[in-house]
Amino acid sequence: MLQLDVFIFKKNILELALKRLIFAENYQVSFMSKLVIVGTVAFDAIETPFGKTDKILGGAATYIGLSASQFNVDSSIVSIAGGDFPQDYLDLLSSKNIDISGIEIVKEGKTFFWSGRYHNDMNSRDTLVTELNTLADFNPIVPESYRDAEIVMLGNLHPLVQQSVLNQMTTKPKLVVLDTMNFWMDCALEDLHNVIKNVDVITINDEEARQLTGEYSLVVAARKIHDMGPKYVVIKKGEHGALLFHNDNVFYAPALPLEAVFDPTGAGDTFAGGFAGYLAKTGDTSFENMKNAVIYGSTLASFCVEKFGTERMQDLSSEEVLKRLLQFKQLTQFEIVLNDNL
Amino acid sequence: MLQLDVFIFKKNILELALKRLIFAENYQVSFMSKLVIVGTVAFDAIETPFGKTDKILGGAATYIGLSASQFNVDSSIVSIAGGDFPQDYLDLLSSKNIDISGIEIVKEGKTFFWSGRYHNDMNSRDTLVTELNTLADFNPIVPESYRDAEIVMLGNLHPLVQQSVLNQMTTKPKLVVLDTMNFWMDCALEDLHNVIKNVDVITINDEEARQLTGEYSLVVAARKIHDMGPKYVVIKKGEHGALLFHNDNVFYAPALPLEAVFDPTGAGDTFAGGFAGYLAKTGDTSFENMKNAVIYGSTLASFCVEKFGTERMQDLSSEEVLKRLLQFKQLTQFEIVLNDNL
Repeated sequence: MLQLDVFIFKKNILELALKRLIFAENYQVSFMSKLVIVGTVAFDAIETPFGKTDKILGGAATYIGLSASQFNVDSSIVSIAGGDFPQDYLDLLSSKNIDISGIEIVKEGKTFFWSGRYHNDMNSRDTLVTELNTLADFNPIVPESYRDAEIVMLGNLHPLVQQSVLNQMTTKPKLVVLDTMNFWMDCALEDLHNVIKNVDVITINDEEARQLTGEYSLVVAARKIHDMGPKYVVIKKGEHGALLFHNDNVFYAPALPLEAVFDPTGAGDTFAGGFAGYLAKTGDTSFENMKNAVIYGSTLASFCVEKFGTERMQDLSSEEVLKRLLQFKQLTQFEIVLNDNL
Repeated sequence: MLQLDVFIFKKNILELALKRLIFAENYQVSFMSKLVIVGTVAFDAIETPFGKTDKILGGAATYIGLSASQFNVDSSIVSIAGGDFPQDYLDLLSSKNIDISGIEIVKEGKTFFWSGRYHNDMNSRDTLVTELNTLADFNPIVPESYRDAEIVMLGNLHPLVQQSVLNQMTTKPKLVVLDTMNFWMDCALEDLHNVIKNVDVITINDEEARQLTGEYSLVVAARKIHDMGPKYVVIKKGEHGALLFHNDNVFYAPALPLEAVFDPTGAGDTFAGGFAGYLAKTGDTSFENMKNAVIYGSTLASFCVEKFGTERMQDLSSEEVLKRLLQFKQLTQFEIVLNDNL
């Protein structure tokens, strides 16, 4: 059964060769895309069993932007804030190579504020305060130079705001990713359905997928969402990982098992930012590459929850990310050779 | 960065060569072990949202045995039943190459009977009836010819019964796997701790791991269980898959996302049977091979839930198993090449 020529190579040499060849192929398709991110920049005040914070930097676009910045992509945040939003926060985003010209500052206004308290299991939380402030009248303006961006990441916001961003794109984006939540299903379902029609990928958590479709099985729910428009459906299951659906294909990325989740705030947005950032970086929106994007998203989210708010993401090094990616490989990769002899 | 010699092979040829080499290595270590299985054989009556059954074949040892039989291993079930246990059920087990000489038949007694009703989410159930019957006085006797078995699978039973089986082994087994449940933590905790000290692998579900250790984090719980004796800890999370812990190593096998779970009865035992059966078949109890065992366990469990009771497992072909293993590969395997350039 074995051929002699196989033995002229040792296994590790073959693996190395294979790795290099794959790298070469990846490298050839590598192409840096521009990334537009729409979402909130915000103040968050968070209580977990480990402690509580005063108002700190938060917001979906903030987490998405910081996460995507790991790939050094050319990104732009489209958002709104009040005069109370510290220059330091804007400088932080700029320092991560994020264009902030699309963040409208309403000098006399106040920044969106959210406050929440997590329960002991960290899987559920109570919202204590929501002050929309300037966000109530948010009219997103995509900077001229980003209207031809290849990748658009529509963070969790009113579906009409998400649609408005799409309407401003002068070139049809290569990939539009949308994140949403149950709140919009409750109060703007028709608008949500309308924008969902126009996106390629939706990221949504398991309970929201069930709410949107009325189906308990995530396989059936994903198929129904697929029929609403998105070719790719990502269902986020928190500590239980994430599923990527595309037609009859499914890919599963676990969450890294952690000793402690310190603060789950922003984990979903960090996942989405890693997902979109990796696709922008590689310029390859195939299903195979999207698997990698899901793994990167899970990897980055595993850091996010280690400290309060954005703290862990602010100084995250690429060495740390690579090391954790290796953990994901060890966590999930196995070598069963399929043959008739079980 | 690329070396010319790489290009004399196309990628698929390299992959094929690599695959053959791995197969060759697996083949060399392949060694058929004997497998002893202790656990219940039973009548089950099951209600799910999809229907209900009269008394059908059930029991931990039954599910474990049927699952392990996929590997054509030389296995023996140690159990007890009443005179009401149909000869057909015994014949079924025998037809799967399972030695049944260790199943004591108490002619005037009745077989263990369990009845349960699953809730709509299939994740929780109410026990309607438990009649221990002959199981109340079960004194397990391992057949002489299996007292030197290399692999022992202690299915969910009183810890003293599990220990009694271990005491009868004349040769120290290569691997002892123990499955248990919260019931024994509630009513026989000290006995449970005593037998846990003597096993290599424990399989336990997430809530039970938390109960046994008082720890919410499964990473911390696994470490504490590790300190109780087992070098390997498998935490079963139902529809969310299973985690294998060994020192600081973790491996994660997802459950296959299914359109519908018809009847979850026996899924955990089927997982354990696939796990132990694969290890008996290969004779390789390394962590790397145990990863494969976890994948086989998940694969076989994914069939078990498709029909009522043992129905799906009775006529499962190796072709079906291979096809589903391929689905698990597609579900979990990705190719990120790690290099400094994220």
